[in-house]
Amino acid sequence: MPKIDFPEEVKILIAHLKRLPGVGPKSAERISVWLLGQEGGFGGDLADAVRRASGGVRACQVCGFFESSTVGCALCADEGRETSVICVVEQPTDVLPLERTGAFKGTYHCLGGRIAPLENVGPDDLRIDGLMGRLDAGGVRELILGVGSDVEGEATANYLAELLAARHPEVEVTRLAQGLPAGGGLDNADELTLYRALDGRRRI
Amino acid sequence: MPKIDFPEEVKILIAHLKRLPGVGPKSAERISVWLLGQEGGFGGDLADAVRRASGGVRACQVCGFFESSTVGCALCADEGRETSVICVVEQPTDVLPLERTGAFKGTYHCLGGRIAPLENVGPDDLRIDGLMGRLDAGGVRELILGVGSDVEGEATANYLAELLAARHPEVEVTRLAQGLPAGGGLDNADELTLYRALDGRRRI
Repeated sequence: MPKIDFPEEVKILIAHLKRLPGVGPKSAERISVWLLGQEGGFGGDLADAVRRASGGVRACQVCGFFESSTVGCALCADEGRETSVICVVEQPTDVLPLERTGAFKGTYHCLGGRIAPLENVGPDDLRIDGLMGRLDAGGVRELILGVGSDVEGEATANYLAELLAARHPEVEVTRLAQGLPAGGGLDNADELTLYRALDGRRRI
Repeated sequence: MPKIDFPEEVKILIAHLKRLPGVGPKSAERISVWLLGQEGGFGGDLADAVRRASGGVRACQVCGFFESSTVGCALCADEGRETSVICVVEQPTDVLPLERTGAFKGTYHCLGGRIAPLENVGPDDLRIDGLMGRLDAGGVRELILGVGSDVEGEATANYLAELLAARHPEVEVTRLAQGLPAGGGLDNADELTLYRALDGRRRI
């Protein structure tokens, strides 16, 4: 008796979906079967959306934010931004929550990751040369290190701070404040957060 | 200042991915950004896989299992199967674990769901007419109700059993055994499972 299994097309789809982050073999199977049951050409629409985004969007050569092949980089195209302040973030997605605060009018530089030796990510894998190029061109007054407050974020911040002190001592380097998150009580804060909140206390 | 957001292509991709089962807004964003970072044309491959599967695979008109436009339905094409026994399952995916047991040589009928009034799924939404057609054609000796043992599965089994008793009393209707799962101790079994295990006890 021949072995009964998914048709070849479905097996290939499952194999591809399984590679997506957060999608395991079971979810890949579930999504595939769900897709087969969709009416109205949703599968074709999804295929188009995947193709358009993955073919038409890449990292901006200057700042590392998303650059669409049709409209370019929205950040670099925005002439109202203060070019004297650069906020360095890990990923282009980190720009969006910062933008939502409405508190920052400067430009960004997306590194494309953070220094993480355990994941084999070193300084050369990040967009640091491009950042130095922007600083070498002059006109930058302040560099805000908007990287995460975890171990890898700290390592990245320290690495950049040392590099800047050596190559561009005229640029002021700052770091996002660390402390209690808004709405958080002391009972929910871990030791390190409390330590940093104490360390960074401000006169009111 | 213009609002900085994902490029349009990425927003459309996120909107599509969000509709997949088990994929929330955050996962959709994460998958999209991950896809943009993939080298080697993975996005295009994924788009192809989605298009081929959703365009080329549908439910077999006879048994409801997957039918590929290239090779047809693997179950209906298999001439070695006993056509006198039909196992009724909810979804085409339910066929695969049953096949893996190697214990069943008959044919299947995939209903495409189960009776679930709370989800607005009634008998008319299932592939029951097709099942009756197969029974009307004659030659079927036994119908195994291979639906789930939850409330909806029970409702579906009862509905089919009554229908069969009225229209095809010559067909023996059986149900998959319920009881302790393999390797499970009594301490882990819920009351209903234990009740059914007692009720269905067999002489050894």
